[in-house]
Amino acid sequence: MKLTVERLELLKTLTTVYIAIGSKTPSPALLNFKLEMEADRLVVTGSNNEMTIQSILPVRREERDIIINYELGATLISARYLLEIVRKLDSKIITIEIIDTTIVKIRDDKSEFKLNSMRAEEYPDLDLDVQGEAIEFSAEDFKRIVAQTAFAASTKESSPIITAINVKADGDMLDFSATDRFRLAKKKYQCAESHRIEANIPTKTIVEVSKLLDGGVIRVVIAENKVVFIYEGTKVFSRLIGGEFPNTNRMIPSTFANVLKINAAKFIEAMQRVSLLVTETESIVKLTLTEDEVVVSSRSEQVGSAEEHIELFEYNGNPFTISFNVNYVIEAIKAAMSEDVVLSFVGETSLFKVTSPTDESVIQIVTPVRTYY
Amino acid sequence: MKLTVERLELLKTLTTVYIAIGSKTPSPALLNFKLEMEADRLVVTGSNNEMTIQSILPVRREERDIIINYELGATLISARYLLEIVRKLDSKIITIEIIDTTIVKIRDDKSEFKLNSMRAEEYPDLDLDVQGEAIEFSAEDFKRIVAQTAFAASTKESSPIITAINVKADGDMLDFSATDRFRLAKKKYQCAESHRIEANIPTKTIVEVSKLLDGGVIRVVIAENKVVFIYEGTKVFSRLIGGEFPNTNRMIPSTFANVLKINAAKFIEAMQRVSLLVTETESIVKLTLTEDEVVVSSRSEQVGSAEEHIELFEYNGNPFTISFNVNYVIEAIKAAMSEDVVLSFVGETSLFKVTSPTDESVIQIVTPVRTYY
Repeated sequence: MKLTVERLELLKTLTTVYIAIGSKTPSPALLNFKLEMEADRLVVTGSNNEMTIQSILPVRREERDIIINYELGATLISARYLLEIVRKLDSKIITIEIIDTTIVKIRDDKSEFKLNSMRAEEYPDLDLDVQGEAIEFSAEDFKRIVAQTAFAASTKESSPIITAINVKADGDMLDFSATDRFRLAKKKYQCAESHRIEANIPTKTIVEVSKLLDGGVIRVVIAENKVVFIYEGTKVFSRLIGGEFPNTNRMIPSTFANVLKINAAKFIEAMQRVSLLVTETESIVKLTLTEDEVVVSSRSEQVGSAEEHIELFEYNGNPFTISFNVNYVIEAIKAAMSEDVVLSFVGETSLFKVTSPTDESVIQIVTPVRTYY
Repeated sequence: MKLTVERLELLKTLTTVYIAIGSKTPSPALLNFKLEMEADRLVVTGSNNEMTIQSILPVRREERDIIINYELGATLISARYLLEIVRKLDSKIITIEIIDTTIVKIRDDKSEFKLNSMRAEEYPDLDLDVQGEAIEFSAEDFKRIVAQTAFAASTKESSPIITAINVKADGDMLDFSATDRFRLAKKKYQCAESHRIEANIPTKTIVEVSKLLDGGVIRVVIAENKVVFIYEGTKVFSRLIGGEFPNTNRMIPSTFANVLKINAAKFIEAMQRVSLLVTETESIVKLTLTEDEVVVSSRSEQVGSAEEHIELFEYNGNPFTISFNVNYVIEAIKAAMSEDVVLSFVGETSLFKVTSPTDESVIQIVTPVRTYY
């Protein structure tokens, strides 16, 4: 195997595939990129067993040579070091060449690296089939769906099922749900076609995929145990999470006694300021609503107390007080992605709803917290 | 005590004094700022016992009112929370007021914080005398002296004396030295007047002081056990480190067999690239010098090898090879602060010198490392 390649094109490909490389793995082969120089393209593969990324760098793209002087072949080469070397070299083109079965040479006009390598045959067999129900999104829509739901998923590996984002369709409306049992984010998405699917996609994977996107279209292919994201020359394969996702529809209240409409940015700033004094990991803030004013306040026995009054708002309901984890409410408000935000309450101890007054596709639900002051 | 003050002026003062506040302290009073509203100024003091910073905010400066509506008095108030509150409020002026002996109110037109406070009398007595031998530096000179020496000081608290920068004068030439026993940084500085001093100043303190400077003049007052830095409205007091500083002049070789002059930036880049493969904490690079070429190389059993050739250089001497900790050499070259740099060698196992070809005031000495490849 031998190829001379535009450094920045290779760097972009390696950086994408590197997302799948784990720092620890039971299989030493998986610390490597698999490089395969084929007739008209370089195929780069990386995997941590749970997620696999395969990216294609064509020999020519739009009348421009990206790879020249190549000989077919394949090798396994340390992902970490190859990426570092390609990043740090400063010439426009570099050459990669197998010089014997265990050494690969990487060079430009000034520098020469010899990296220990492994034979391509030592790479594990990965399931790289792409069959299943395919759904297409614009990159922009996909990023928005992820930004409005992923933050609410659990990060605790002790309940694997809720570390996933649940995707469900029975018709042409897709439902995305994420919950950590203290809050719920739900997003509806109108598809071009009808689908009948349910899948629990690892949140980490879906977030990494959304970071790769920059315009264009992404195809998501859902099979029984896995999902494949196809974007430009890159395929991201991930297992699905097994088990039954909680019935989150039961978390959504339907009749509300107290409804507040308020400027999102001003409300967030006020909550951030009053929570300055709160030292615990769970920052609790109290919201007091009357016809005349909205007051956010907090208290810490050790440090002191803080309160802030907000003047511009619309409130429907009796005087009402509720306390909550301020980070949950701030994240829910941000996910509404609108200038004003609507908070709808049932009672002091009931789940409440955060929505946009103009976009019904996204619903955020938050659990209140009891306080004793 | 009561004062209404320009928020950004107070923020600057508090940020400066906060440098002296430790996160852990045996005395709870030292987690506080001491605020003293005097007839024409606010005095803010912070200390961690080893370093004390006192900063003055005048009531008026250059015909402009900075503090208005004030009543004299003093209090101790949580440094961390007061700083955070003053940073996060967004109005131009704020009011601070003692409302009883244990509560201080901080407010602007929207927000109100009540912080638990302590009486000013509970603050420890600090030695804030400013007497001793005074030396004046331009801020620029002072920053340059620190940048050329401080990095070479030891960070290991097990040998306190070499965590200091040694300052010595017997005449009008000041000598600054820093060493961690594996390298030495030495800087000479021509004073306006004659001095007779020797002091071991904690490197951490001198680095923090240099970060405060932005034009103007700094006065350094050295007494028997302490040093005071005086800059604009701020005084930084620090203990000196006791004990005898090593005789570093013995580390400086005088006759050299091999002398290399080379472009500093190109040499550093080459060393950084070849050390990419080195996984150990001490990154060892080998330098091979002949009349025709300069080669930097490295080798790691596990990963592979790297080498780079540099073409533009001047070399005087026989073919020669030496290995060293690449970080030490890169830091020494950077401290020379010149386009080209001169490396002077005695032999493979001897200390070597890194200097600027145009500035004799700064000398860097580095220990080589034995390698077996």
